[in-house]
Amino acid sequence: MRKICFVVTSRAQYARNKLLLRLLKNDPDFDLKIVLSGSALLSKYGEVAEDLRKEGFDSIDELYVNLEGGNNISMARTTGLSILEFTNAFQRIKPEMVIVIGDRFEVLAAATAAAYMNIIVIHIEGGDASGTIDESVRHAITKLSHIHFATNEMSKNRLLRMGENPEYTHNVGSLDIEFLDYVQDLPDLSFVNEVGVGIKIDINQPFIVVMQHPVTTGEDNLINIQATLKAVHGLCVQAVWFWPNADAGEFVMSRALRIFRESHKSYNIRFITNLPTEEFINLLRKTSCLVGNSSAGIKECSFLGLPVVNIGSRQHNRLAANNVVNTNYDVENIKEAILSQMKHGRYPPSHIYAQADTSKKIVEILKKARPPIQKIFFD
Amino acid sequence: MRKICFVVTSRAQYARNKLLLRLLKNDPDFDLKIVLSGSALLSKYGEVAEDLRKEGFDSIDELYVNLEGGNNISMARTTGLSILEFTNAFQRIKPEMVIVIGDRFEVLAAATAAAYMNIIVIHIEGGDASGTIDESVRHAITKLSHIHFATNEMSKNRLLRMGENPEYTHNVGSLDIEFLDYVQDLPDLSFVNEVGVGIKIDINQPFIVVMQHPVTTGEDNLINIQATLKAVHGLCVQAVWFWPNADAGEFVMSRALRIFRESHKSYNIRFITNLPTEEFINLLRKTSCLVGNSSAGIKECSFLGLPVVNIGSRQHNRLAANNVVNTNYDVENIKEAILSQMKHGRYPPSHIYAQADTSKKIVEILKKARPPIQKIFFD
Amino acid sequence: MRKICFVVTSRAQYARNKLLLRLLKNDPDFDLKIVLSGSALLSKYGEVAEDLRKEGFDSIDELYVNLEGGNNISMARTTGLSILEFTNAFQRIKPEMVIVIGDRFEVLAAATAAAYMNIIVIHIEGGDASGTIDESVRHAITKLSHIHFATNEMSKNRLLRMGENPEYTHNVGSLDIEFLDYVQDLPDLSFVNEVGVGIKIDINQPFIVVMQHPVTTGEDNLINIQATLKAVHGLCVQAVWFWPNADAGEFVMSRALRIFRESHKSYNIRFITNLPTEEFINLLRKTSCLVGNSSAGIKECSFLGLPVVNIGSRQHNRLAANNVVNTNYDVENIKEAILSQMKHGRYPPSHIYAQADTSKKIVEILKKARPPIQKIFFD
Amino acid sequence: MRKICFVVTSRAQYARNKLLLRLLKNDPDFDLKIVLSGSALLSKYGEVAEDLRKEGFDSIDELYVNLEGGNNISMARTTGLSILEFTNAFQRIKPEMVIVIGDRFEVLAAATAAAYMNIIVIHIEGGDASGTIDESVRHAITKLSHIHFATNEMSKNRLLRMGENPEYTHNVGSLDIEFLDYVQDLPDLSFVNEVGVGIKIDINQPFIVVMQHPVTTGEDNLINIQATLKAVHGLCVQAVWFWPNADAGEFVMSRALRIFRESHKSYNIRFITNLPTEEFINLLRKTSCLVGNSSAGIKECSFLGLPVVNIGSRQHNRLAANNVVNTNYDVENIKEAILSQMKHGRYPPSHIYAQADTSKKIVEILKKARPPIQKIFFD
Repeated sequence: MRKICFVVTSRAQYARNKLLLRLLKNDPDFDLKIVLSGSALLSKYGEVAEDLRKEGFDSIDELYVNLEGGNNISMARTTGLSILEFTNAFQRIKPEMVIVIGDRFEVLAAATAAAYMNIIVIHIEGGDASGTIDESVRHAITKLSHIHFATNEMSKNRLLRMGENPEYTHNVGSLDIEFLDYVQDLPDLSFVNEVGVGIKIDINQPFIVVMQHPVTTGEDNLINIQATLKAVHGLCVQAVWFWPNADAGEFVMSRALRIFRESHKSYNIRFITNLPTEEFINLLRKTSCLVGNSSAGIKECSFLGLPVVNIGSRQHNRLAANNVVNTNYDVENIKEAILSQMKHGRYPPSHIYAQADTSKKIVEILKKARPPIQKIFFD
Repeated sequence: MRKICFVVTSRAQYARNKLLLRLLKNDPDFDLKIVLSGSALLSKYGEVAEDLRKEGFDSIDELYVNLEGGNNISMARTTGLSILEFTNAFQRIKPEMVIVIGDRFEVLAAATAAAYMNIIVIHIEGGDASGTIDESVRHAITKLSHIHFATNEMSKNRLLRMGENPEYTHNVGSLDIEFLDYVQDLPDLSFVNEVGVGIKIDINQPFIVVMQHPVTTGEDNLINIQATLKAVHGLCVQAVWFWPNADAGEFVMSRALRIFRESHKSYNIRFITNLPTEEFINLLRKTSCLVGNSSAGIKECSFLGLPVVNIGSRQHNRLAANNVVNTNYDVENIKEAILSQMKHGRYPPSHIYAQADTSKKIVEILKKARPPIQKIFFD
Repeated sequence: MRKICFVVTSRAQYARNKLLLRLLKNDPDFDLKIVLSGSALLSKYGEVAEDLRKEGFDSIDELYVNLEGGNNISMARTTGLSILEFTNAFQRIKPEMVIVIGDRFEVLAAATAAAYMNIIVIHIEGGDASGTIDESVRHAITKLSHIHFATNEMSKNRLLRMGENPEYTHNVGSLDIEFLDYVQDLPDLSFVNEVGVGIKIDINQPFIVVMQHPVTTGEDNLINIQATLKAVHGLCVQAVWFWPNADAGEFVMSRALRIFRESHKSYNIRFITNLPTEEFINLLRKTSCLVGNSSAGIKECSFLGLPVVNIGSRQHNRLAANNVVNTNYDVENIKEAILSQMKHGRYPPSHIYAQADTSKKIVEILKKARPPIQKIFFD
Repeated sequence: MRKICFVVTSRAQYARNKLLLRLLKNDPDFDLKIVLSGSALLSKYGEVAEDLRKEGFDSIDELYVNLEGGNNISMARTTGLSILEFTNAFQRIKPEMVIVIGDRFEVLAAATAAAYMNIIVIHIEGGDASGTIDESVRHAITKLSHIHFATNEMSKNRLLRMGENPEYTHNVGSLDIEFLDYVQDLPDLSFVNEVGVGIKIDINQPFIVVMQHPVTTGEDNLINIQATLKAVHGLCVQAVWFWPNADAGEFVMSRALRIFRESHKSYNIRFITNLPTEEFINLLRKTSCLVGNSSAGIKECSFLGLPVVNIGSRQHNRLAANNVVNTNYDVENIKEAILSQMKHGRYPPSHIYAQADTSKKIVEILKKARPPIQKIFFD
């Protein structure tokens, strides 16, 4: 049995990797250990550890790192603290391999700790291009990792250009899409009115979903969210607006949302902090248009053929299907783009991020993978 | 004036970058701040801070990080702690740019902190290939950096392949070579007998220099150093042997050297912990052959045309001139290689790492450089 | 000149120690260095560093520690992180003495770092008794400190009982009271309606002030704040209610306040996060009664002769004058106590915490103090 | 079952608390968890974790903290780092009670973390007086602790004077003495010649044991160890000399020992880093005199009636029996004291630190103990 350690950094990430986690747990070749860190341990996001135990995952290590968001210093410091904790966890667990996903600071921390400790680092979702600090961090993680599971062909090619070993660089499609496809339809969307504040959404009428996250690298997050607010408010359409995530810039954005709420007697928006992944996917399936700068617009919505208005630089250069209309933070441009996308309606589904059996492919590849600890740049 | 922060992590690094530091200090366009960290603050390596102040550098910030070596965990943990300290230092100093050099864990820490804090990261010596964990870390630093000064054309090309911006990727030659060329000849080498233990070196007779550092990624450092010891001991030639540096593996290597010393009544070796850089360069100029796995064998010795026996994987794939003979850790192979290199004598100097005015070129480029904080992958 | 380092952990603390700071800055015997830490660096509490520089204090070191509140783990972890940062700061500054005040976790951290580094620790406000974790932490700081400035005779005696050196244990009165006495009357209290939310306070009518902070050691902070809310809401009197401070338990208390606000159409309360110290003191001077568990009720209000309703265990055993009525968290008891105190009106001022020239006395004592670094228990 | 967490910080500490650990493990009222930290995890001191598992202790959590010694900064910083790690460990384990022993920085860290987390802190060996920083730290730990097990009546009284709750303050004698009494006689002492360097000890002839540890608070450790070396070297008696422990000052002391060894062709000393506790106790039983500043001279040797020459301030004020002769660091005084003690020979055993069934008493008391989390100063 090969000891393999799976790093879970958020509730959503756990949800979306459930299929892969189950396969690893039930495979006699692997001894699965789970390390929970970051927001996965914040009680306001729900008890992920408890859910995992209910599903039969019992080798869980919990790393309580001071997680605070809202500015650039705290992202850097949390990275440093997380390295300390991951080092201790890996020393206790002594895994042969560590699986990390994405481009968050906890992931850079886990990859750094594992790389120095001569543990094989398996990185999922490498090679993507984007904006914000994630762009730099994602590629730095790549260079610390031994095995790569890209979600699309363009990203795989980028990994190879960066000198990664072709034998250990694979495009297996996106776990998010695999899970999206697996989630069953819920009978109705009434859950959306049971959380958050603002108007009651009439789920039989058209509504849009807004997800606008901070850009940490110098964009004016305040002016940008005000532009989107003004555009959405100016349209006569219901909107479900998700709270920004906890990167640098979240503080000014959250305050802008609060000020908007307090300074308008009536408006057409329901504000929601977050939803369980299954409910979120059901919401996406029914919305008329996704607006903002979330990667869900590029990835999940390509598969759903859902109209997307992608604003600003955050998803810059990420492989997109033709369901996406890009725009800048000009109020009129945003309004126009939303109207035109709502008018257009559904697009044909794209498979740029989709493959059958993504989880199964990953497990099959890992079973045979014995990469050398010493990495070599493939010129 | 643009505030620029120079990260110094060791006494040797300070010595070799003196020319660049002076130019930056005297340039009216720049407000130079120095951050000392890592072994630059260990008193056993001398008081770097004091030397800097004597030379007129007075904006110095000192970061005392628990620096311990000798194992993989401590390298990882020191990275984490260093991020905490660099974050605080950069927050106090608020520089526009940070200069980092090389591939040590302090450097990854400084680059991570600066990148998250939207400070322009300038990386010197990126793009090289090598063995040990440095290989991964060096490229991770590249992906967190905005401006690159490679020391050779092959490395510059590797940086471009990795998606770095051609406008901010330069080959300016090696600062180490520029400094090597600048250092004056000392009247004699008697200093070598004033430090360390072992035989007295007769500086009028041929002698070799041995520098064998740990490889952190799974090589058997103990067996390897024993092989080199046996080979050098078996030859009838004087040897100056430098203590291994403080990476993971240093502990077993140091012990092997001690056991050798205690178990042999007589031998042909002088063991030295370290030398001031100027003295070290003078020693190199007079030695018959450099043996081991130090990058000095590849870089400095290419310019000196000095015969080098490079053993094992540590410098794997690094651009080398024809002064280098590679061998594995077989005792007979090492002996044979040393004898053949000593017989061969000097090679013609190579300029693969050498350019005129390296420091000046760096300063001129930095004066005009205004890279965007948001990095983009150049496909 | 003896280098003396003053640790400032909050805006309020800086304000209240202004007189002492000025004396130290202007005294030729001392070279004053200031270290800012904790909430003194949170921008939401205002830029303390900027204010200090405006007043001519220019030797300032800033320690950015991940400060998060709201639970017991974060208090412990912040203590650990703060020790790391204070160690580095003291190493840079190399003070002969460090002054710390009170019983917060940053103070324990500073005292621990200084004690291990053989720096003389001067502790102000030691020897008090109270509830919450502060009780334990305050006495632990005492046992790490070399010179003590108690604020009252009972506390001085407690310090002596704990084995402290009588030669270095002084009762000089409270700096808070000295500052209180120094603050000038403001022309009116209209500032109170310029911050916060809730009713507009009619400053010509009677009003009470409520300050209820978390108790970290097992009391039910939620039930307690609900009791006080119910009591205050049930009385026909205007109230200025200060937000709880950021100790463990703050989260549930803040939420209770928010829920109260949202579920009541009208109420008699104005909620305020905080006020500049001068304004706060002016507010105290005019209020009819202070309600809650703040030490200001015991200390400042003793000198003002202001009626106080002190609820619960947080100030348990702290020396109090007869202006204080103690009660438990029973709604009827709280109401009754407030009414009876408002009816009673002012008490004669007490001098249990008050002495003339507190700051001057401290400076004079410090000038001559040369305590041995090695502490001895005085049996 | 009440979850109780036992903090083990060194191999010796584990050995000496074996009886208590066994009782707790086998008691149905307790669910014993062990946290290993500090030098207990340094492989050069042997694998404590492995030994524990062999003895059937299987709930073990390992905290790898950067442990480096030799200076005051590293002691402070290690305290900070240890608080971070203990916080995480206690959060994972969620114990009702934590047991800590002694006065080391790891112990202060564990007590601080537990106190902030509202875990009952049980402190063994509180109330002693001594020199070095341990004096301050020990009493700080007391003030953070809820239940106290002093080893002697004088210490118990000191705890009460410091305001501790009489109901939870007990004198149960020393666990070290209980274990000393329990250890069986080994057939011979030949083990002493199987470790370390220097002369072969003739175990049938008289020999002394020297244990001189650093004093962290300003004594001149170098001059002091040179004095003891000169005195011991000047006497015609065999000596077993134990290496100093890793507090601030250890570096200069170790170097002095090395220089002594290298500069003397012949001498009468065997230098030993450490011995298993059972062997150490057997060595003590046979030695003619213990020389230096170890607490073993005061505690263990009182029970053995062993002549002790206690030098300098390190044990200042600690309760001692009449087997101890105190002296300063004057060479002639040390020589004279050793000769006079060797001439005197054994003293009658003292029971100032000895009680029957110490471990059992502790367990019985803990079974019934339900101290309030909120401490109160007992005036």
